Amino acid sequence: MILTVTLNTALDITYHVRDLTPHASHRVTEVTERPGGKGLNVARVLAALGHEVTVTGFAGGATGRALQEQLAHTTGVLDALVPVEGATRRTVAVVDAGGDTTQLNEPGPAIAPAEWTAFQEAYEDLLATAEAVALCGSLPPGVPVGAYAGLIRTARSAGVPVLLDTSGEPLRRGVAARPDLVKPNAEELAELTGSHEPSQATRDARRRGAHTVVASLGAEGLLARTAEGRWRAAPPHRLRGNPTGAGDSAVAGLLSGLVERLPWPERLARAAALSAATVLAPVAGEFDRAAYERLVGQVTVTAEANAA
Amino acid sequence: MILTVTLNTALDITYHVRDLTPHASHRVTEVTERPGGKGLNVARVLAALGHEVTVTGFAGGATGRALQEQLAHTTGVLDALVPVEGATRRTVAVVDAGGDTTQLNEPGPAIAPAEWTAFQEAYEDLLATAEAVALCGSLPPGVPVGAYAGLIRTARSAGVPVLLDTSGEPLRRGVAARPDLVKPNAEELAELTGSHEPSQATRDARRRGAHTVVASLGAEGLLARTAEGRWRAAPPHRLRGNPTGAGDSAVAGLLSGLVERLPWPERLARAAALSAATVLAPVAGEFDRAAYERLVGQVTVTAEANAA
Repeated sequence: MILTVTLNTALDITYHVRDLTPHASHRVTEVTERPGGKGLNVARVLAALGHEVTVTGFAGGATGRALQEQLAHTTGVLDALVPVEGATRRTVAVVDAGGDTTQLNEPGPAIAPAEWTAFQEAYEDLLATAEAVALCGSLPPGVPVGAYAGLIRTARSAGVPVLLDTSGEPLRRGVAARPDLVKPNAEELAELTGSHEPSQATRDARRRGAHTVVASLGAEGLLARTAEGRWRAAPPHRLRGNPTGAGDSAVAGLLSGLVERLPWPERLARAAALSAATVLAPVAGEFDRAAYERLVGQVTVTAEANAA
Repeated sequence: MILTVTLNTALDITYHVRDLTPHASHRVTEVTERPGGKGLNVARVLAALGHEVTVTGFAGGATGRALQEQLAHTTGVLDALVPVEGATRRTVAVVDAGGDTTQLNEPGPAIAPAEWTAFQEAYEDLLATAEAVALCGSLPPGVPVGAYAGLIRTARSAGVPVLLDTSGEPLRRGVAARPDLVKPNAEELAELTGSHEPSQATRDARRRGAHTVVASLGAEGLLARTAEGRWRAAPPHRLRGNPTGAGDSAVAGLLSGLVERLPWPERLARAAALSAATVLAPVAGEFDRAAYERLVGQVTVTAEANAA
């Protein structure tokens, strides 16, 4: 199975309103709820691609129970979340009639030292049967900033390929622990390396310890720098839609390509097509399967001269 | 005991943010949650005044469970909510650093005919030991628009004094079923009677069937029209603060005065002081006990000539 880790899971709530006016009262016309946090989004896409996925991380409180009930109805995703005393955070996306979104993100629950220890033990047990692991998203309060670095070292000791998708200091420390793959977006990559030039920045990220770097550059697609070469993968034309979850779909594409041992150009084509099919989907964070199947043959993957 | 009915209960969530900007992403700095819906607010104030209170209405889903868990920790309030399949709605109040509030209200869950029948049976059983009952707030989808009229007739048959606090068509139909007391605000009263002149409108509301009318007129206090006379009750000076829940506190004051058989001027002084102490409280919907105890002696209650 593929393991995804989401330490800061969330109950993602979407409200539809006609128009959002500060200091006014609004009738919400439609409410949707789904399990959230990057690793859970990645798991849903992997399951849709036919992979067996286990999710771990933390869940607690009434919101955690709601999240776990919904996960129980998600085919192909096994719930191995570790219980905590604090309540899983909510995120509220308020979408108006024009399709614009106003986002409200609760802080995560405080994780007690004993809960963090319990998670690390559960994680080590889960690695025994994992073909690959993805470490995704932000850290809730109470989890040490070097958490991902430790989890990467544990995965490497267990011989399990590990992908890291986070930002800021947790990314900086995680990269130094030599993960197999990092998937920063343009902003995260620039913050990590100090360079806004993607080619230079991906080279720098590899020097800092990442074995492979795949940067997701929005409309410009993916830029991969690996031990075997450099590639750029881009959809056939500019896409209009909601980019929420596009990066998580790219992670799912990369992970599934990894466990299927696809050559890099095919992995990248899959990741770029999934990402594009997520932008095109009517529901934020879902992917449009028909669009994916059409786009996967249309993505152009270009090998670039490896100057580094 | 005093019974309060809240057919459209809510989990009231308050988010503190620095500033609410449409189409931006916001970090919520503080989250609070409490059982909501007018009848639950009334019950909390009654319990704080030392009354035994039972709450009924509907609760369902993960939000309903969260609400009931919190009710279990509310001293003096007995939970007799009827379980439903649908999920209790949430309301989200986004408070910015300037103290202004943007409100997002989910629609209530659809109530099935069998659930409405189960509620009516539970209600009739609860009336057997009730000294008074308050019917509060909006109706969730699936509950007939004449619901309150039926519940008022049931209370009258059981000999239990009944207070109605709702708006629109449920208020119009409820008033026609001859409740002992209605407590509209200025807007609800005008919508019911077509008159924006409170004295004329309260007279008209009595003609429509309400035995007593106590209108809450914001900063101008309360205007009561009863079989015994007319009174106006107002706090000693204009109050600055958050009016959320001030009407619910007035209802609690009126109900407690009713079961304690206080003369009208005392009932109104209590209701006006509780209402004012709610405006002054730092947390929306709570009342400031010290302010209440100070204000209850300072409210001026004036008998008005009964022209009708």
